[in-house]
Amino acid sequence: MNYPWPEPGTPLEQIATPMPVIDEDRLAANIARVQAYCDQHGKAFRPHIKTHKIAAIARQQLDAGAVGLNCQKVTEAEIFAEAGFDDILITYNILGPAKLARLKALNSRVAKLAVVADSEVTIAGLASTFSADQPLTVLIECDTGARRCGVQTPEAAVLLAEKVAAAPGLRFGGIMTYPAVGGAAEVEVFLARTVALLSAKGMDCPVRSSGGSPDLFAAHLVPSATEHRAGTYVYNDRSMVRAGHCSADDLAMHVIATVVSRPAEDRAVLDCGSKALTSDLLGFTDYGAIHGFEGARIVSLSEEHAVVDLSTCTEPFPQIGSLVKVVPNHTCVVSNLFERMVFHRNGIVTRVEKVDARGTVW
Amino acid sequence: MNYPWPEPGTPLEQIATPMPVIDEDRLAANIARVQAYCDQHGKAFRPHIKTHKIAAIARQQLDAGAVGLNCQKVTEAEIFAEAGFDDILITYNILGPAKLARLKALNSRVAKLAVVADSEVTIAGLASTFSADQPLTVLIECDTGARRCGVQTPEAAVLLAEKVAAAPGLRFGGIMTYPAVGGAAEVEVFLARTVALLSAKGMDCPVRSSGGSPDLFAAHLVPSATEHRAGTYVYNDRSMVRAGHCSADDLAMHVIATVVSRPAEDRAVLDCGSKALTSDLLGFTDYGAIHGFEGARIVSLSEEHAVVDLSTCTEPFPQIGSLVKVVPNHTCVVSNLFERMVFHRNGIVTRVEKVDARGTVW
Repeated sequence: MNYPWPEPGTPLEQIATPMPVIDEDRLAANIARVQAYCDQHGKAFRPHIKTHKIAAIARQQLDAGAVGLNCQKVTEAEIFAEAGFDDILITYNILGPAKLARLKALNSRVAKLAVVADSEVTIAGLASTFSADQPLTVLIECDTGARRCGVQTPEAAVLLAEKVAAAPGLRFGGIMTYPAVGGAAEVEVFLARTVALLSAKGMDCPVRSSGGSPDLFAAHLVPSATEHRAGTYVYNDRSMVRAGHCSADDLAMHVIATVVSRPAEDRAVLDCGSKALTSDLLGFTDYGAIHGFEGARIVSLSEEHAVVDLSTCTEPFPQIGSLVKVVPNHTCVVSNLFERMVFHRNGIVTRVEKVDARGTVW
Repeated sequence: MNYPWPEPGTPLEQIATPMPVIDEDRLAANIARVQAYCDQHGKAFRPHIKTHKIAAIARQQLDAGAVGLNCQKVTEAEIFAEAGFDDILITYNILGPAKLARLKALNSRVAKLAVVADSEVTIAGLASTFSADQPLTVLIECDTGARRCGVQTPEAAVLLAEKVAAAPGLRFGGIMTYPAVGGAAEVEVFLARTVALLSAKGMDCPVRSSGGSPDLFAAHLVPSATEHRAGTYVYNDRSMVRAGHCSADDLAMHVIATVVSRPAEDRAVLDCGSKALTSDLLGFTDYGAIHGFEGARIVSLSEEHAVVDLSTCTEPFPQIGSLVKVVPNHTCVVSNLFERMVFHRNGIVTRVEKVDARGTVW
């Protein structure tokens, strides 16, 4: 299959749709801004590759000063290891013989590999897989308010840290949390108390890793954290603008779409459906914003159609065949749908990158 | 990258997760049941490949008696044409020079290719691309109540049919609709009136194509339709059970997931996030059903985590490391996330098929 990816030099007006495109200058500015902030506050910065899944962008992030990468799956980490990255934190409980075997092989190839654990079961699986000649670094995942994974108390974190420290094949590396938005104070209390409890037992807690893009710029309110992880900041999206993390001028990703139908006065249909935008709402009641047409609302998606309600749109909406730019609610899930990503500067295509870790299974 | 797809003969208990799996017997039964229904009622059946995107399954559907395939994008049709299918209807307004050029090339390779149009703009683009030596068949898309694409009245359908008929490179093939669920009566009125108006002008309307899985078994209530299109019926999903189209015993797709965390009494976390299940709700308030645990609710997804609320679960929920079977809300979008699809019979892997048209761009 000869896929229709545009050549460098192509104006965006000529690309076939639906197609996400990345603004090179905004991408570079997003990388620089966050790195400068972390540098200023003495935080190590560890970008999460889930958003872009592209080795070339991870290289830009490391060149800017990031300490290493954050992955979510073993196969993602394999791809970035293959691309030459040697400091990877997988923020996931790795379970089951197949993944543990691949993780062990990966640990022999990556200089600095670490995972997280939030249970005795996960630690037991890791402990029975790794041995002292090539130990694996393990951080304890803490639930500081996001109510996803993680131990519920600093005391429970210490108990698991001791389990890790007692396993010959494991090395206790510190603690990690994926915090709730706006939860800086809660994170600080949890981390500080855990560090103190560990210290009282004579245990060091070298890495205290917090994360998230939405209130990334509140990372300095968590003095106990040594590093911050974030993914979405690199492209930004509609949810990041709403969260106050960035302005519309920092949106590096748009999805170019074509108006394919104008069946009624108050309705237009675009060719970016749920197989281009996904159905992620992230609290919104519509499926993306159409640049320049604030009153036009994407009220429903089917797989290849976006239905736009024009009843509250005051600008004349483009006619059939015209292109529009959609700001996705959530950029990370859009990346994962496309084999390649198209980059541009001032509307002219600069490069097309393979989405290296797209569709990794686990 | 040596992807971890399971070998034939592997028990499902041993596969790494998250992984969608297809029950061979249910798949075959779903194909047979719908074909038998269409045969019984004298309707041609045209399966939509959007659900599976796999040539081997399309072959099963044609072997059972389907007349041809339904695709939604030019590149999807290219892949199925390459695989040897020679009767393809693309139910989409094809616009823009890149797609029109590819469509023209495709029309020279596929014995029976047709597209739809719902506007003069779409027809003008097609008319300027195709010529009398290799004409393209065009159906007029009608909005019979679903409020997506389509002309609003039978009179408007006739006007466009005349435009098609007047273009030397186009052949008027009939009318097509993607109806609202439960809208059989409305569809029949629209189709019958359009056929009558065309007939009064001396125009034949050979194909009257209706579609959709949810009330597929109401297709006999639309006597004016000559064919029915459906995709989801082949796997079925939670939304199909709710619609009354099938029972839980007809669900051919489950997503196998691992319990990766049990952070609190009332909370479990699975490894099937929005990059495995997607966020499609289709009217549900949770993101999939967990087989055998009716009270357990998947209340939120992040990309690689599904958070399960156990507060209303009366059965003891599996511990960390155990596998569960999730019934996705919407199967078609799950297929599109995976490079390959794993099939099984009675829990033993039978084959692994490439999802041939996964991630096609347009």
